[in-house]
Amino acid sequence: MSSCKFSIEDNGNEKVWIGYQGVEGSYSHEALLDYFPDNVCAVNVNEFEDVFKNLKNGKIKYGILPVENSSTGGISEVMDFLHCYDVFIVGEKCLKINHNLLGIKGAKFEDIEEVYSHPQGFLQCGDFIKSHPNLKTISYYNTAMSVEFVKKANKKNYAAIASKKAAELYDVEIIKSNINTNTNNYTRFVIISNEMEAKEDSNKISIVLSLPHTQGSLYRIIKCIADCNLNMLKIESRPITNVPWQYLFYIDFEGNINDQRVKDALECIRLNSIHCKVLGNYRCDQNLLE
Amino acid sequence: MSSCKFSIEDNGNEKVWIGYQGVEGSYSHEALLDYFPDNVCAVNVNEFEDVFKNLKNGKIKYGILPVENSSTGGISEVMDFLHCYDVFIVGEKCLKINHNLLGIKGAKFEDIEEVYSHPQGFLQCGDFIKSHPNLKTISYYNTAMSVEFVKKANKKNYAAIASKKAAELYDVEIIKSNINTNTNNYTRFVIISNEMEAKEDSNKISIVLSLPHTQGSLYRIIKCIADCNLNMLKIESRPITNVPWQYLFYIDFEGNINDQRVKDALECIRLNSIHCKVLGNYRCDQNLLE
Repeated sequence: MSSCKFSIEDNGNEKVWIGYQGVEGSYSHEALLDYFPDNVCAVNVNEFEDVFKNLKNGKIKYGILPVENSSTGGISEVMDFLHCYDVFIVGEKCLKINHNLLGIKGAKFEDIEEVYSHPQGFLQCGDFIKSHPNLKTISYYNTAMSVEFVKKANKKNYAAIASKKAAELYDVEIIKSNINTNTNNYTRFVIISNEMEAKEDSNKISIVLSLPHTQGSLYRIIKCIADCNLNMLKIESRPITNVPWQYLFYIDFEGNINDQRVKDALECIRLNSIHCKVLGNYRCDQNLLE
Repeated sequence: MSSCKFSIEDNGNEKVWIGYQGVEGSYSHEALLDYFPDNVCAVNVNEFEDVFKNLKNGKIKYGILPVENSSTGGISEVMDFLHCYDVFIVGEKCLKINHNLLGIKGAKFEDIEEVYSHPQGFLQCGDFIKSHPNLKTISYYNTAMSVEFVKKANKKNYAAIASKKAAELYDVEIIKSNINTNTNNYTRFVIISNEMEAKEDSNKISIVLSLPHTQGSLYRIIKCIADCNLNMLKIESRPITNVPWQYLFYIDFEGNINDQRVKDALECIRLNSIHCKVLGNYRCDQNLLE
């Protein structure tokens, strides 16, 4: 991975630009480094939505975004954007997440009074935080940005919750390691693009759909998948914004879009839903199957 | 509602004690006041899990807990406790949630630098927070407790995100009203008890189950419901703690436990799942159907 000094106004370069939310040392950045080959350029933005916007206006070729954590569930905001923006999932990366309490050099656990992190960091370290009620937990944009903030503030009573890579990068102390409640803590990232990139080895389909409010409507969708002998991997319902108690359904199932069984299943699903979008057909990360 | 001064050590009183998480003026407290008749006593605790613990050791007869918000989705922690603790859902209450920015008397919007609230409050007011990046957002136990904290701190640069009822109760100023992103913002609460309390007018069944990792396993469960002509209301998958990418399924469907169709569906579901628990049979809140 080159550390090319990218400015969002630059363009027309031959390098492939990849967008992620956060800063260097964030889990998104780590997932990007793991997934992509060395000759790409990483572009960081402040908000999840900026990744989608930069993709749509051609500033980047791909984006990488967290969609689900094995301890805390779906990352609602990103899932909603996947539905709203006209983009496609072209890959996925599953990253093991170990959180650590980080402070400036010389800081000891007894010194710490204020802890900065992303709200997901606090949720995933729930037991640790509950057992130290004296710590004030302050929400910050991103785990790695919270380390940068603590480093710059240079106060012994400040700490951040973030990765060991962030500790290295910002040269801060690991005060307590592996403080996540669930030791098997993974985050699933998706890689998005403006175009569908189904390949021969693509073996996972993601769709999102809305259904009529009638008896058996979801059953008919799942039957479409089962009748074609396809294996459903996941289902998640998300409330539709501003329409209380009506849901969008995000469904993942195994298959390649060029397989006739998949074509039949999708045709059947379209006939039985109000609205259905194929989010992508891509290669399942083997880590998910372990 | 009597404002009886309950201490958790008291007991043997004839009053019915109801537990909730938070303090007076919280949305849970408001849901409790709306749902129960006047002759009950409200008991507040610090953590969601304390409601379950007090119910199991007989300190309270019922508990009331938020399980889902129409903007941000399931409240994972409570859903996990519903699965782990041997308790039953005996009712539900759907409460409209309008968040407000509250400060001490005389505080103006320009004064505010630090905002205290529950992380759910921040999530539900995402657009407001994003459009004021100068505000530092600090996670607190509960929306109403954050108002109490701001009131006691008595600082003009502090604000809380909470309800108008909390503003009245703590006699603080409403600096900005209805700051939630989604104007149709509802939270669904469930009432829990140590015993199943299915009545003649109970018309909603909640179950939680785990499934074998085989093709069509979820399809078979949903088929059990559809084959008995029962209407599925909701499905939500939650990761199983410490087992990455395996899911529990929470399913709601219409019906009364004494109806033969429901008995048949549950028998079919049990035969096709590894583990299945009926969480309760209760009366659906009409607000959900509007």
